[in-house]
Amino acid sequence: MLSEFDIIRCYFSRPAPGAVLGVGDDAALIKPARGMEVAVSTDMLVAGRHFFADADPRKLGYKSLAVNLSDMAAMGARPRWATLSLALPEPMVRTDEKWLEAFADGFFGLAHAHQVDLVGGDTTCGPLTISVTILGEVAKGKALRRSGARPGDDIWISGHLGDAALALAHEQRRIVLEPGEIMECLPALHTPAARVGLGQRLIGLAASAIDISDGLLADLGHILKCSKVAAVVKMGDIRCSASMKRHLPQPLAIECLLAGGDDYELCFTAPRARRKTIETLSLEQEIPLTRIGRIREGGGLVVLDAAGNTITLETKGYDHFHV
Amino acid sequence: MLSEFDIIRCYFSRPAPGAVLGVGDDAALIKPARGMEVAVSTDMLVAGRHFFADADPRKLGYKSLAVNLSDMAAMGARPRWATLSLALPEPMVRTDEKWLEAFADGFFGLAHAHQVDLVGGDTTCGPLTISVTILGEVAKGKALRRSGARPGDDIWISGHLGDAALALAHEQRRIVLEPGEIMECLPALHTPAARVGLGQRLIGLAASAIDISDGLLADLGHILKCSKVAAVVKMGDIRCSASMKRHLPQPLAIECLLAGGDDYELCFTAPRARRKTIETLSLEQEIPLTRIGRIREGGGLVVLDAAGNTITLETKGYDHFHV
Repeated sequence: MLSEFDIIRCYFSRPAPGAVLGVGDDAALIKPARGMEVAVSTDMLVAGRHFFADADPRKLGYKSLAVNLSDMAAMGARPRWATLSLALPEPMVRTDEKWLEAFADGFFGLAHAHQVDLVGGDTTCGPLTISVTILGEVAKGKALRRSGARPGDDIWISGHLGDAALALAHEQRRIVLEPGEIMECLPALHTPAARVGLGQRLIGLAASAIDISDGLLADLGHILKCSKVAAVVKMGDIRCSASMKRHLPQPLAIECLLAGGDDYELCFTAPRARRKTIETLSLEQEIPLTRIGRIREGGGLVVLDAAGNTITLETKGYDHFHV
Repeated sequence: MLSEFDIIRCYFSRPAPGAVLGVGDDAALIKPARGMEVAVSTDMLVAGRHFFADADPRKLGYKSLAVNLSDMAAMGARPRWATLSLALPEPMVRTDEKWLEAFADGFFGLAHAHQVDLVGGDTTCGPLTISVTILGEVAKGKALRRSGARPGDDIWISGHLGDAALALAHEQRRIVLEPGEIMECLPALHTPAARVGLGQRLIGLAASAIDISDGLLADLGHILKCSKVAAVVKMGDIRCSASMKRHLPQPLAIECLLAGGDDYELCFTAPRARRKTIETLSLEQEIPLTRIGRIREGGGLVVLDAAGNTITLETKGYDHFHV
């Protein structure tokens, strides 16, 4: 059976060319470039809550980093370093080294793609829990904050929303998707694309930004609260997949679209004068960027359907203590 | 019942005067001072493994930060910022807000004492798990590493060892301590003093350093391996409490002393020429600093008893998958 030190040595000690000192001492040492601030964020994923206990370990490794990269994207930061803490059930370590190998593969595959170095971590025995802290660089004073939205700003989203929540609803048997629909929606749930390149390009363009992890309404709501403004969003303008379109009349699909969460797309606001530049950026990055509404003075968030009627939802977004 | 956002707002959003941006956005922003590197370390504590599920939440909050501060001490870094991820069982959130209040009190009490800002975190529902990442500053190229020990170096330890393990053995009913002994040993287990000030003063004096979290033999072993050297330690020279002295003939007490772990004292090596300076530092800091042995050429670690005989132990230190 592997010891704690074996696990770290075998699976999680890799060269960290972007660090002064990587895994293997009491702490790692990193040095941000001159004039850069360090962005820091952390996320914890728990079996049975954020993923099924029998989830594909490769996808889990990927996703546990992706959700953190998405936070860097939302700040406009370039992700550079990460730490990983893993609590693993004893039987998993004793009998299933393949699990660790696949998890590490998924994690490092995405890390290498973004030139992120794993510089530290901890492994222990316990109910399967994954905690990643990500560190990135962003030019001093330039980070995209939630608090910068101004009345008159357009509200933009990247990509399309709701597929991850739709796939999860299918896995929970709350909805039935056709095989083709499953094929279309499942990657959004298991291997979301963090909009890391886009986020960095939005510096100087976007007035405020957030990543959509808890659902559009909840996350746009954070921007409104931090910026002390209101918003009107047209549901019909929110880009969604063909699968989502087919299910959209259903309340459950509307909920997935507006409040499902796990999208890891960016929601940002920008002055009207930036429209052309943002549309060009969308073409350059090959990522759909869509205007879905407008920031107003006041407080609150109104979502209108095609007929101009206000849509009311029971839940506004994902809350880990209210599900 | 508190929502995830309520928990963060009520208990974990405090001013972060040392950060550019604290809790409340997608990431925090920090900026190390000019010429400083950032030291990063992370530790995960799991209920039933690192602490009893009914542990005093105030002490748990304290200790979850202390074990991380200890890693900064071992690098000679000044701790400055931390993130905290918490998985909490649902009933604990629903019925026991006092738990959260006490946990936060313990955590922030120690954080304030060391001017550490909590700059980010995550709360979720799950088996009680605490993951802290600590960030500190250390002058470029000056950090204390495990790899710097040289033949001829003295081996030093701070404070005294084994009390935490003795207290744990008592709580596990593997040994019986007298009430006075419990009073003496228990604080080492629940509220260890991280040697933060000492660590920073050891820069330029110590050749290598580590904090003793897994037990003296395992942790000194890390120094030996990283530095490619051997060591001889005299057990009789290891400072220990009156309680430990009374139990020391027993094999269990020897194990607690040499391999118990959870000490969070520093073990460091320094050239013989530094003895006087280190003795003066001990007086200044009011922390016992004791020479317990010598670094030699070669490999391996030999511990001698008072008669000069080699001591052999079954376990060499704490491994989270072998207990």
